[in-house]
Amino acid sequence: MSPIKLIGFDLDDCLFDSTGLSESARIKGLDAMIDLGLKIDKEKAVRILKEIVKDYGSNSSKHYNYFVRRLNQMEDNIKHISYNDGYKYIAAAVMAYHGEKVNSIKLYSDVDNSLRRLRELSIKIAIITDGIPIKQYEKILRLNIDSLIDLVVISDEIGIKKPNPELFNYCLKKFGVKGQETIYVGDRIDKDIIPANLNNIFSIYLHRGGKYDTYKSDIELQEELKPDYEISNLNELFMIIEEINNKEKINNF
Amino acid sequence: MSPIKLIGFDLDDCLFDSTGLSESARIKGLDAMIDLGLKIDKEKAVRILKEIVKDYGSNSSKHYNYFVRRLNQMEDNIKHISYNDGYKYIAAAVMAYHGEKVNSIKLYSDVDNSLRRLRELSIKIAIITDGIPIKQYEKILRLNIDSLIDLVVISDEIGIKKPNPELFNYCLKKFGVKGQETIYVGDRIDKDIIPANLNNIFSIYLHRGGKYDTYKSDIELQEELKPDYEISNLNELFMIIEEINNKEKINNF
Repeated sequence: MSPIKLIGFDLDDCLFDSTGLSESARIKGLDAMIDLGLKIDKEKAVRILKEIVKDYGSNSSKHYNYFVRRLNQMEDNIKHISYNDGYKYIAAAVMAYHGEKVNSIKLYSDVDNSLRRLRELSIKIAIITDGIPIKQYEKILRLNIDSLIDLVVISDEIGIKKPNPELFNYCLKKFGVKGQETIYVGDRIDKDIIPANLNNIFSIYLHRGGKYDTYKSDIELQEELKPDYEISNLNELFMIIEEINNKEKINNF
Repeated sequence: MSPIKLIGFDLDDCLFDSTGLSESARIKGLDAMIDLGLKIDKEKAVRILKEIVKDYGSNSSKHYNYFVRRLNQMEDNIKHISYNDGYKYIAAAVMAYHGEKVNSIKLYSDVDNSLRRLRELSIKIAIITDGIPIKQYEKILRLNIDSLIDLVVISDEIGIKKPNPELFNYCLKKFGVKGQETIYVGDRIDKDIIPANLNNIFSIYLHRGGKYDTYKSDIELQEELKPDYEISNLNELFMIIEEINNKEKINNF
């Protein structure tokens, strides 16, 4: 047996606040429409947009289209939004939304330092993530961590999607390491922890308060579905690595 | 009969240099890939990308994907671009491309002044354009001409596309004006001039040197397909308006 050689991370809501960024970007979109003349109470607008995100999912590209249509259906609607105004509002909202997404993306404060420490320990670093490959790589470039990552595995390109444990096995094979030499850090039991466990990878549940951060250790789960560790800050990683490495030493003794 | 009451404009390559902006944005994309480490001669890269734009059309969203694939097919290819590097290059190129499109869009220098003069003359102003409604409105907002335009007619929203003359008739009806009270300015014989002529709208061919600027007055065309006027600067509009208005006065005398 040997010590930890590889650590994998989920991207969204693990290395940066994806949930929070989407929420603030959506609000910027509403602000842009109101600035342009849309007559609506801001709080009401936020409430309606939240309903739309719930109805259509957070990844729909048409939130603001539905928003304008929904306003035009409402009984207390003061003034029907014309075709021209509707598109103007939607365009302004989409511009503001993307501007915020592009300009305000930033790493959680514990990430850059932790990745550098891992590199100093000669531990390889991978990102394993679902999502559209170019969009995911755009995030990595904007977060400026490209040079710190040894391998990016984006499921849609490989053709194996989370929670298929083969995706994690693909990554192990790429580095020529075993599960027990590897740690995976994610925020979803179903898509991160279970496939890691199935590959004998040490699984760490990272609490960031994002939209999927629903796991509590008092939830009754079969033992094999539970994360090996829970953390809320990446700096806790290093104690865990030390603990695992020490155990391995004792076992080898 | 009455004088000119309405003037309609095409958007792309008429009010701003759409062709030039796309070209410079594509180059920025190549620069970003080279900056990130892609080994290729810049001139060769430009040549390959031009071929791809020719093969797949200027509106494809996958130019850089095809670019990377094509490099990997080429016999003199020094080094196969890996999956990871490929997506990194494509993401960087797309980011740079969109950044340029967003930040460098600007009106032709004769536009703002001409639109303001038209408003002083109490002539209504419309934009009649094909294209994706939100994208077209985004351009109008970024060009900061929204407050100068009385009506934006985007064919995909109306469900009538250029060169269908009904699109122009729709606009006449919206303002309650006749064709002979209207001027339309565009850069395509097929999509701008002919449908304007069919509605008895005074047609003006505007030379901007864009990708569709191929009309020369010595081309043999049937009389009803020819523009009534040709200009290369919007300031020439005002003499034409005066000429038309004077003719109308004489006819009414």
